[in-house]
Parts: sequence; structure tokens; C-alpha cells
Amino acid sequence: MSLLVIGSMALDTVETPFGKNIDILGGSAVYASVSASYFTDVKIISVVGKDFPKRYMGLLKSRGIDLSGVQVKKGKSFRWKGKYDWNLNSPQTLATHLNVLSDFRPVLSDFDRKCDFIFLANNDPELQLDIISQVSPAKFMAADTIEFWINNKRSKLIKVLKGVDIFIINENEARLLTKEPNLIKAAKAIISLGAKKVIVKKGEHGLLYVTKRSFFATPAYPLETIYDPTGAGDSFAGGFLGFLASAASAKPNAKHLSEASYRKALIYGTIMASYNVEGFNLKVLSALNRRLIEKRYKEFEKLVRF
Amino acid sequence: MSLLVIGSMALDTVETPFGKNIDILGGSAVYASVSASYFTDVKIISVVGKDFPKRYMGLLKSRGIDLSGVQVKKGKSFRWKGKYDWNLNSPQTLATHLNVLSDFRPVLSDFDRKCDFIFLANNDPELQLDIISQVSPAKFMAADTIEFWINNKRSKLIKVLKGVDIFIINENEARLLTKEPNLIKAAKAIISLGAKKVIVKKGEHGLLYVTKRSFFATPAYPLETIYDPTGAGDSFAGGFLGFLASAASAKPNAKHLSEASYRKALIYGTIMASYNVEGFNLKVLSALNRRLIEKRYKEFEKLVRF
Repeated sequence: MSLLVIGSMALDTVETPFGKNIDILGGSAVYASVSASYFTDVKIISVVGKDFPKRYMGLLKSRGIDLSGVQVKKGKSFRWKGKYDWNLNSPQTLATHLNVLSDFRPVLSDFDRKCDFIFLANNDPELQLDIISQVSPAKFMAADTIEFWINNKRSKLIKVLKGVDIFIINENEARLLTKEPNLIKAAKAIISLGAKKVIVKKGEHGLLYVTKRSFFATPAYPLETIYDPTGAGDSFAGGFLGFLASAASAKPNAKHLSEASYRKALIYGTIMASYNVEGFNLKVLSALNRRLIEKRYKEFEKLVRF
Repeated sequence: MSLLVIGSMALDTVETPFGKNIDILGGSAVYASVSASYFTDVKIISVVGKDFPKRYMGLLKSRGIDLSGVQVKKGKSFRWKGKYDWNLNSPQTLATHLNVLSDFRPVLSDFDRKCDFIFLANNDPELQLDIISQVSPAKFMAADTIEFWINNKRSKLIKVLKGVDIFIINENEARLLTKEPNLIKAAKAIISLGAKKVIVKKGEHGLLYVTKRSFFATPAYPLETIYDPTGAGDSFAGGFLGFLASAASAKPNAKHLSEASYRKALIYGTIMASYNVEGFNLKVLSALNRRLIEKRYKEFEKLVRF
């Protein structure tokens, strides 16, 4: 089954202790779709300005990603500028210029609405709700968010988490949203708020996956050297949803997935994020293949089995 | 095979957001030996003052722990006073009164030196080295430490980690000891310093176990409510070493343990620490049985399998 990714395409300027890159390919939809492209067909719904380099489109096309839903508008592309210090945790955002993204109001086509898996990458919860209203509830939807929306549009965000099949959030956001310092309680509180399933991403410490009836925890893939954490969350989501979409292909319904499939998908997401942060920008993520992914998956199994 | 635990017996005054307890039973040797007592025979080598309540000795005896190596000296028992705030992470130490512990220089008996497993709980590295020198290198030794010794007796501590079979440390201590913010690198740096095996405890995020040839990571047992983290590290060590000692009973040599045994032992340690922090002081830890331990072990397996 195919995956529709609705999110940003950006020109990022990223500073890490290892170097600085100006106006490089970025955005939530980019990282998520490149990551998912190793597992399933992917289509991006997004918008860029006239200044968006053709070679960046070429990179996405080379991964087989359908770009027919990417509008090219007069004006400048969305730009994000961030800086990581030595601990390479959350970046310091130096600048955000929405530019053409500021009036992004996607209307899904008939084709889009037939996609069985939809990823609502970080965006204004009102826009996420608008998309949810355009899609049949039979489709599988996942949404991500950031602190800004928790602080500024909490009630709309709670509607989003009720409206999707799985809500993806990081540990600090989960604590902020629920006011619970204990992450297990925070995850359960998100379920109480109405989410069906929640993934709490903990960076180097792995993740928690909580539903009304089940609980799963995994460490991260151990990495000695992290070059650039940009896109880690989106490449996780892309790998996770890409694998789920591929696992669902044998099923009559996108939502008929077993707990075992979800857990496998969470590990594939973990593996994709680990590859992503090993290189600047999309350098490693865009140059993978299924053999490398399976190799690391098997290696990971050995590292955590007891 | 039996386990010798060399460490402190204390009267703790512990304040958590849930209450305050004055002069309760504590100390590294107490938590470690009660935890280990569910798996194997345990003997404590320690010292207390004349003020040490008999009922505390009674509690340890009721767990079958051999107290013949506990000296009762004129003077006051070692006292520790700590406070946890709402996040229940590391305690703030309010006071440490070494009292009779200040001139604790244990000389092992012939019986002690025949124990196959020895845990050198947190102590002055010089004292740990003195014990290492009394024991045959054929015995299995593990050591723990705290920040104070990393800051004040680093070179002696490095001799300790070279002299034992397994070195147990928490994540902040590992970073402090190696000056490496990345924990995987920090763990490997401890191996480079000469440790044969190292466990890096990460509290709610589980642990890493690293040797020259292997790597293992596990999340913690998920707990919604933590009442009192005191003794978490020592109850982990006790469960870990207690299980190893029991697994080694079928072997000709205490050091002939498989990677699978180490991993199982790490999970048993994790389970014992999870029970310990669920109650004030030793309330839960001292009232367990193997059925409850096995139950949680199996439950944990289900939570992390994929």
C-alpha cells in the first residue's frame, strides 16, 4: 500500500560542531519520504518556491518519490536555520521563514484520498485537522507535532491526536503536553486524551510505544558518532510508516495490523533514524538499500535479545 | 555459588515528595544483599555502631543473609541524609556522617576468600584495591563507585576497574570518568581504560552492557510510580550478581559464564531495581519471592520482544 506524506520541503541551514551547510535540502516531508521510499511507494504533498533547486527534486525523484503533489509557487521556499552544540541534542532554532509555506492549504486529489497510509508531518494542527476531514476514516493516519503547537494550539492538537491512528511525539513534548514528568504516565495520559496509539521518541534512549492494551519499549541503535540529528524524527516516522504500509499490502484493510507488525515497524523506524544521523543532511539516508537496512535490523536484534 | 558483598550498612534519612523517613535501614551492602538473597547465599562484610537497631539485623537475617562479617563497633553507625525532588532522579545529599565507617578496613577470612562472587559496593577505591589484593584472581569481582571518587581518586579508581571482572557505573559517572558525552563512546572508553566488562546504568532509560567483543542494551522496566529511588543501583547489582552466582553453580569456574547468562542477569537486576523503587526503603524489596520476580521477568520479556 502507498504512503502519502504531507509536510514541509525546506532549504535548511544547519550548523553542527562538524560544519555548516547553507540552503541544503530539508523539511519533514523530505526526510520522512526518503526514509519510507525503501519500503513502499511514496507521494509528497507540499509546496516550494521558485528558488527550490531542481537537483533537490532530482534527488527525491531518484528515490522514486511521486512529486506531482508538490506545488511550485511564486516566492521563496520555506527556510529553517538551526544550530547543534556538542551534545547534539535538540537544535537551537536560529530562524524560521515560512515564505510560501505560510498559506499552504492542501486539497487532496481523488488519488491522494485513495492512499491507505497518510503521514501528517509536523504542521499547524488546524491544517492537520483540515486534512483529516478530507480523508475517509478507513485510512491509516499518523501525525507528528512540535512544542510550538503544544504551547499555542493545544486544544486543536488534542483534536488531531483523537483523529489519527497513531500520534508521534518526543519525550519533552509528551511531558509538556501532559504535565507529567514520568514518561510512562505521560504516554498513558496521551491515550487518555483520546489517542489510539502513541509513540514517545527518546532520542539516544530509544522509544516507548503505548496503546490502550499494550506497551513496548526499545533502546536506540547504539551509535558512537552522530553527525547531524536533523530529520531523525521524520526519518523514524518514514521508516515506521513505510514498513507498516508494506506489511499491510497483504491485508484487506490498512488497519488490520498485528502488534508484531507494529513492533517490527518501530525497529525499522529506529534503524532508519540511526542511519540518518550518521551523515550530514540526507547523505547517508538517501544512499541506502534494503540489504543495508536488513543488515542493521538483524544486528540490532542481536544487541537487544536476551 | 555464594556472593560476598562488601559495602556500607547505614541509617538513612530520606526525604521524597511522598514523605520523610528518619534513621531507616540503608547502605549499599544492605540493598545489594537483600536483592541478591533471592538468588543465592549472601554474606555481608561491613561495620555498624552500637546504635544499629537489632530489628534491622533481624530483617537481614530473615532473608538468610550471613551477618557474621558485620563488625559492631563502639560509636555511631554510618548515616546518610538525602532528598529527592519531584523528578525523583539523583538525590541531593544533605549530610554524610561516616562515623564507624571511617576506619573500615576489612580483612577477609579464609571463608570469605572462598566465595566465588564478590561485590565491592561503592567505597574508597583504596579500600577496594586492598580487598582485590586479598582475593585470588580466579574469583569473580564486580565494583561500583560514585562521582566523589571519580573526582578525588581517579587513578586509584582506574586501578580498581582494571582489577575487577565487571565495573558498574551510572551514565553521569561514565561521562565524568571519560569526558565523553556520548554514552556508547564513554562505555568503550572505560573498556580502553582497562575494564573487562562495563555496565552503564541509565535509570528510567535502562542500561548498556559493553565488553571488548559484545554490546547489549535494554530499556528499564516501565514504572508509572516511583516512590523512593534509594538503593536502585545496589538492588540492581545484587540481582545481577545474585543471578550470575546461581547460574555459575553448575559450572566448574565462576568466570565460565555465557553472554546469554550475563544478559539474563542484567534483566534480573533490572527487575529487582524496579521492585525496589516501587516502595519506600526496603518495603517492597524485602518482601518479594521468586514467583513475583519470575512473573515480572516474563512480563518484561513480552514488553520488549519484537
